[in-house]
Amino acid sequence: MAGASAISPLALPLPALAPIAGVRLAAGAAGIRYTGRTDLFLAEFAPGTTVAGVFTANKCPGAPVDWCRAALAGRSARALVVNAGNANVFTGQAGRDAALATAQAVSALIGCGETEVFLASTGVIGQPLPHERITAALPGLHAALKGDAIEAAARGMMTTDTFPKAATRSATIGGTKVTITGIAKGSGMIAPDMATMLCFVFTDAAIPAPSLQAMLAGSVRKSFNCTTVDSDTSTSDTVLVFATGQAANPADADLAGFGQALDEVLLDLALLVVRDGEGASKFIRIDVAGAVDDASAHRVAMAVANSPLVKTAIAGEDANWGRIVMAVGKAGEPAERDLLSIAVGGVWMARNGTVVPDYDETPVVAHMRGKEIDIAIDLGLGTGAGTAWTCDLTHGYIDINGSYRS
Amino acid sequence: MAGASAISPLALPLPALAPIAGVRLAAGAAGIRYTGRTDLFLAEFAPGTTVAGVFTANKCPGAPVDWCRAALAGRSARALVVNAGNANVFTGQAGRDAALATAQAVSALIGCGETEVFLASTGVIGQPLPHERITAALPGLHAALKGDAIEAAARGMMTTDTFPKAATRSATIGGTKVTITGIAKGSGMIAPDMATMLCFVFTDAAIPAPSLQAMLAGSVRKSFNCTTVDSDTSTSDTVLVFATGQAANPADADLAGFGQALDEVLLDLALLVVRDGEGASKFIRIDVAGAVDDASAHRVAMAVANSPLVKTAIAGEDANWGRIVMAVGKAGEPAERDLLSIAVGGVWMARNGTVVPDYDETPVVAHMRGKEIDIAIDLGLGTGAGTAWTCDLTHGYIDINGSYRS
Repeated sequence: MAGASAISPLALPLPALAPIAGVRLAAGAAGIRYTGRTDLFLAEFAPGTTVAGVFTANKCPGAPVDWCRAALAGRSARALVVNAGNANVFTGQAGRDAALATAQAVSALIGCGETEVFLASTGVIGQPLPHERITAALPGLHAALKGDAIEAAARGMMTTDTFPKAATRSATIGGTKVTITGIAKGSGMIAPDMATMLCFVFTDAAIPAPSLQAMLAGSVRKSFNCTTVDSDTSTSDTVLVFATGQAANPADADLAGFGQALDEVLLDLALLVVRDGEGASKFIRIDVAGAVDDASAHRVAMAVANSPLVKTAIAGEDANWGRIVMAVGKAGEPAERDLLSIAVGGVWMARNGTVVPDYDETPVVAHMRGKEIDIAIDLGLGTGAGTAWTCDLTHGYIDINGSYRS
Repeated sequence: MAGASAISPLALPLPALAPIAGVRLAAGAAGIRYTGRTDLFLAEFAPGTTVAGVFTANKCPGAPVDWCRAALAGRSARALVVNAGNANVFTGQAGRDAALATAQAVSALIGCGETEVFLASTGVIGQPLPHERITAALPGLHAALKGDAIEAAARGMMTTDTFPKAATRSATIGGTKVTITGIAKGSGMIAPDMATMLCFVFTDAAIPAPSLQAMLAGSVRKSFNCTTVDSDTSTSDTVLVFATGQAANPADADLAGFGQALDEVLLDLALLVVRDGEGASKFIRIDVAGAVDDASAHRVAMAVANSPLVKTAIAGEDANWGRIVMAVGKAGEPAERDLLSIAVGGVWMARNGTVVPDYDETPVVAHMRGKEIDIAIDLGLGTGAGTAWTCDLTHGYIDINGSYRS
């Protein structure tokens, strides 16, 4: 995937990002592939930080994903190193060596175990990662660590992203206020099947790793796993949550409020990734109701979200519900043509298997000209419901991905 | 899907098409949606013609698909009516009425049962089919029926197709020569899950309907079901084979030669559809070996064939094997990253999970500049093998499908 382009018309402004107690960061330019921009960040966590992670379901994961999966068993994190420009995927023994060398360098700098160092890489697949450029840059980053560098970190891991992505929420645990702030990158190769490209969440809450892991898995299922840009599941998808415990909340308090805030942060980040989908000009929400169960509704919503014909029609501002019918029907889920109803922009165009009599296209045409497109589908079979989010498919996607040596 | 465009650079010339004994055809302009071109054809079959059919797995099939499925139970065919411009899909009772009215009109013209009339429609979804334009045109077509109008029929059912598609083979059954000629249309909404858009095969062989059905199912599995243009499975996919019996071959002879010829006709037609994929500039063959079984190899090949990132890379003439790795890994099939090998144009670029040492890109770059791209994938796990065919994803696809009211 190629270099910089104009900012997505669907971009949202970055929220104000307060420091998280126990998290210090620094970003810099290591020259891994890009020039003239930051491409590496280091985060250091206070002792006692717990960690949870969810990774790609792709069967050909990158070396950093393998590293993190193994490191997660220790339940403790002291550092995170993330680079853009090279994904360290399909690089064999050289990739494993690069991950180990990076973790060893950080371990020596901050005085922690190697397996307390978490790693992520994003960029080109199949080229050896020049990890000596990373290890050469790390001492400078270590000397520059500070609390208010979250935005710099978000920018440092961008690839085809056109804007940095962050979300933040507060919650209380047993009366103690805690803050959750996450950053994400992603624009293409987005069909998360456990996570998306890269997402890192920092909180000052004190949460045991098993609880954190359980909450994260649920949050990812409801956010990243309901989004798609191009149906291609990355080899590097990584979501990591680091809880520093600096808020000193009661250990045995109810975590419902925290879980809700974590859900919201992850959904915010997942939708920001969709808004920065390669070439996107429309942000599309697909609500499916009336399915036999929620899992079936989810699969129907994702089939519509992944249909090139639906996505090109929306790019052309055509409320082509015939293509939506096709995509529902190809999902392989229970569906009855003659019970199916479809709305666009809140207007029901088709009901019970045929066009609505005297259907007036005017409000739908106006809706299609906007940037936020809402599709509702009622299968008329049961009470299962689900939502998917995606973007349209435009010439911009072809431009970005059809250019030589991405 | 929109109107005419330049002929696909991957087009092949139409073969010589001799008449098939027992089949007479005529094509004409009924003005269903297009003007200034043929959009309707009628075929009449000799008494005693047997029929077999395979239809879309889409859960929202068109009224003509429902009609044919029911009519197939009679095992006998006397006529086929096909129109372009309107798919008669998601049209409720009006769609069923249109199918019945068309079949009744043909039944009266040629003196056969209604259920001996087969129907297919292709074009826009969700708009009532103006069947009175069809029934008004049928008497003229009936008067014009002749043996050498197969090419006219192939042209009359084109939509976004840029060239007509036909294939022909001869075989012997018990010493008697028989001929099989098929025509197909299809360009977008091509991810056949039982068949593709529309394909009709005519033969003078005498084959009982159950044998014909069994052979057809096998042929479709090995041809249309191994191809994809855009991963979107049509609501109208239909393959019908009509055997007139006029060759008077022995009834109990070995059908192996006929089956082989039928396989070849269907594969020819399926690959012609891929060559006319919307916006296609490259014809791509993906061979997968070393899978745990053939079904797994097929699914891996189709995952690669459906990957927008692989298809855009090929459009950009980039032998981006990293994206092929990604697509193999997302297929959900057994795969071991460190056993995986990938070749493009016969050159192994990656072996056993990493790039080949001293890999020379020169011959691969030359191969990528051609129009026929060969990808080979060895999973290194077992003996399962499979092949898929697809085309690249270009600006042309966006142009065709992003235009208003396709």
